[in-house]
Amino acid sequence: MKTLLIKDCMILTMVEGEKPFLGDIWIVDGRIAKIGSSIEEEADRVILAKNMVAMPGLINAHNHASMSLLRAFSDDLKLMDWLDKKMLPAEARMTREDVYWGTTLGIAEMIASGTTAFADMYVHMDAVAQAVLDSGIRASLTRGMVFLEDDGGRRMAEALDLIDNWTGAGDGRITTMLGPHAPYTCPPKPLQGVIELACKRQIPLHIHLAETVEEGEKIRAKYNQTPTEYLHELGMFHDTHVLLAHVVHLNESDVALLRGMRGGVAHNPVSNLKLGCGIAPVRELIEAGVTVGMGTDGAGSATTLDMFAEIKAATWMQKLKHGDPTVLPAEAALRMATIESAKLLAIDHEVGTLEAGKRADLILIDLDKPHLQPVLDIPALLAYSATGADVDTTIVNGEILMHQRQFQTLHWEEVKREATARARRLVEGL
Amino acid sequence: MKTLLIKDCMILTMVEGEKPFLGDIWIVDGRIAKIGSSIEEEADRVILAKNMVAMPGLINAHNHASMSLLRAFSDDLKLMDWLDKKMLPAEARMTREDVYWGTTLGIAEMIASGTTAFADMYVHMDAVAQAVLDSGIRASLTRGMVFLEDDGGRRMAEALDLIDNWTGAGDGRITTMLGPHAPYTCPPKPLQGVIELACKRQIPLHIHLAETVEEGEKIRAKYNQTPTEYLHELGMFHDTHVLLAHVVHLNESDVALLRGMRGGVAHNPVSNLKLGCGIAPVRELIEAGVTVGMGTDGAGSATTLDMFAEIKAATWMQKLKHGDPTVLPAEAALRMATIESAKLLAIDHEVGTLEAGKRADLILIDLDKPHLQPVLDIPALLAYSATGADVDTTIVNGEILMHQRQFQTLHWEEVKREATARARRLVEGL
Repeated sequence: MKTLLIKDCMILTMVEGEKPFLGDIWIVDGRIAKIGSSIEEEADRVILAKNMVAMPGLINAHNHASMSLLRAFSDDLKLMDWLDKKMLPAEARMTREDVYWGTTLGIAEMIASGTTAFADMYVHMDAVAQAVLDSGIRASLTRGMVFLEDDGGRRMAEALDLIDNWTGAGDGRITTMLGPHAPYTCPPKPLQGVIELACKRQIPLHIHLAETVEEGEKIRAKYNQTPTEYLHELGMFHDTHVLLAHVVHLNESDVALLRGMRGGVAHNPVSNLKLGCGIAPVRELIEAGVTVGMGTDGAGSATTLDMFAEIKAATWMQKLKHGDPTVLPAEAALRMATIESAKLLAIDHEVGTLEAGKRADLILIDLDKPHLQPVLDIPALLAYSATGADVDTTIVNGEILMHQRQFQTLHWEEVKREATARARRLVEGL
Repeated sequence: MKTLLIKDCMILTMVEGEKPFLGDIWIVDGRIAKIGSSIEEEADRVILAKNMVAMPGLINAHNHASMSLLRAFSDDLKLMDWLDKKMLPAEARMTREDVYWGTTLGIAEMIASGTTAFADMYVHMDAVAQAVLDSGIRASLTRGMVFLEDDGGRRMAEALDLIDNWTGAGDGRITTMLGPHAPYTCPPKPLQGVIELACKRQIPLHIHLAETVEEGEKIRAKYNQTPTEYLHELGMFHDTHVLLAHVVHLNESDVALLRGMRGGVAHNPVSNLKLGCGIAPVRELIEAGVTVGMGTDGAGSATTLDMFAEIKAATWMQKLKHGDPTVLPAEAALRMATIESAKLLAIDHEVGTLEAGKRADLILIDLDKPHLQPVLDIPALLAYSATGADVDTTIVNGEILMHQRQFQTLHWEEVKREATARARRLVEGL
């Protein structure tokens, strides 16, 4: 029996209706065994967390972690220049080893900024899985599949290999999805094949949807449909869990088509802002009963994987769009980054709130800083003032991945050295 | 002669057209004496700044620092509820001592997040000035004047006392302005009096303008003008330096009225987002030749005084508004937070860029973090990924105010204790 006791912190469980309270958390064999005030239990290790808030680890519901290698390589460009002249040529040089180290760099940033689980879509996903395994973080992994130039046979084989070989690895830390890339890169026939397979084997799907105006125009020209209608008609929202990323450009009837879907939407506020894509109809989706979580997208576009930046951006964008500061208040934004994102990864029965019986995926946030004083309202401080740098300790499955801002499972100097050398090679001459 | 040598850092001077370079900075008696590669000079103190970027300290061009006491006290409310039910009753309880400690808390946050100068408008400004003097930061101070209920005689007397008693204090760190609050709180007669006095004595002005749609409606109903037309007709843009804060709701002819003005606009992106005010016409103002800097507004609305959050929000908002990721690129946003803001405070001859002869107001940013690696583009990393927590060292007038994230002039435990006790009293029962 392995035990960990966290003492004397303000606890924000993220269970609906529960207010922050002062208490302790007792963790046994990776799960929260007790949570409450004044827990008197023996433990192998005790963390005194005075002046700290314990909350569920943040869950990044849409990422391409390996693109952290391409951070700050091509900002302030038109989307097509960014993609064609910079990202695609650099990515074409990426080896399996590059993906391992790029993902590890991304995981280092996530651990350092309080993210305990992420959904990832990329290539060389066995390398991504290995990086997840080695680092101790939790992830839902997807081999992204484009079907433009061929039948996608190799990619589909890799996708199934990932699912067969890695699902459940790392004491259940790794889960998997099937990842047709986007409506504009997946023609009806192969996409329908993927959907049917997903339904038959009950594998969740992860796909980009309606990120840009241009995507809508492309699908309109080809199929005389909106991207959402296109996926709906192929049966995507009938009988399987779907993680939809971005979902910016939806009309009212598109929103209605998503009503009652399994899974939901991963909002990517910073990426949508930085690429000038637009403001997603988050309020409308939530009102329609759709689960809305949040993610960062890759650091190639968003530059950072700090979910606290996404929380701020999400609430700001909705307040701006509706001209109303009461829209998407602090607690709702924090929910999106925790339990709602957990639902998108289909792991909400295990993580996303702090409750006895759940996996111990949690973070400690140090309030002993000028921008987090005075402590008048903890959710508001966390949503509007905290950043990833305020996270002191990151715990996944009861294992401490960072403590007092020191990595416990990663060797930062090695990660930095490998990432730097590989990044320089990838971008040379571009 | 007091000397400080900063060695082996990447230097981003913010002088237009200069790229980051590896070098040293030699500071003598508070001014940059030499800046370049391999400076061999004796110094009382040497800072080895490997893996760090040296850049001009950030300049917060619109703040109400004392409102840091009311941080996270009243978020997610309608503007009028926020003001009438929360802010005004709490502020009515504020004593001179409260303002001193609230300002000191705000200054602590600013120093900790790389801000070396700020423009402030509030009451009990002698307490604000004392806090500036004690902490070592630089500031341009303004007694905010509302003329709704009386002739504002007492407020005007306090404003002039501030100017007469404090201008030039702290080895020139304190400068002062005259602060008629806003078009909707200043009727024509007293406002014209202030403008005439400012022109006669050549005192800069600091005023809020066109923050909300409601302000526009009020001024339209009263004077059949836009707020900008109202100020223009009273002669505000003719013969004195003016710092205009917010400036969100301008039509094309309003922008034209500001063409050629002395001073310029302090953009407040986070506050504008968080209160749902709208997106300021930053691109249009810059194209019209108006100086546009940036500020945080008070922590009562923005929650944080981190200028790195403002930099991100500013560029995101313009990209969003124009649907174009090339608008307001990283370096332009960094310029707004440094030299352009310095122009607004009328201190650009002394600070805002790193150049020999200027005052040594600069910060060191530690790149040895996952979210700031690999180092492919320093301005992009600073604009899109850095936060205030990445600032290692803050220097004003050659004095080290923070080093290795430890305050050198403030006693944090005392600041925290005073701020907490006072904040609790201010908000009790509200």
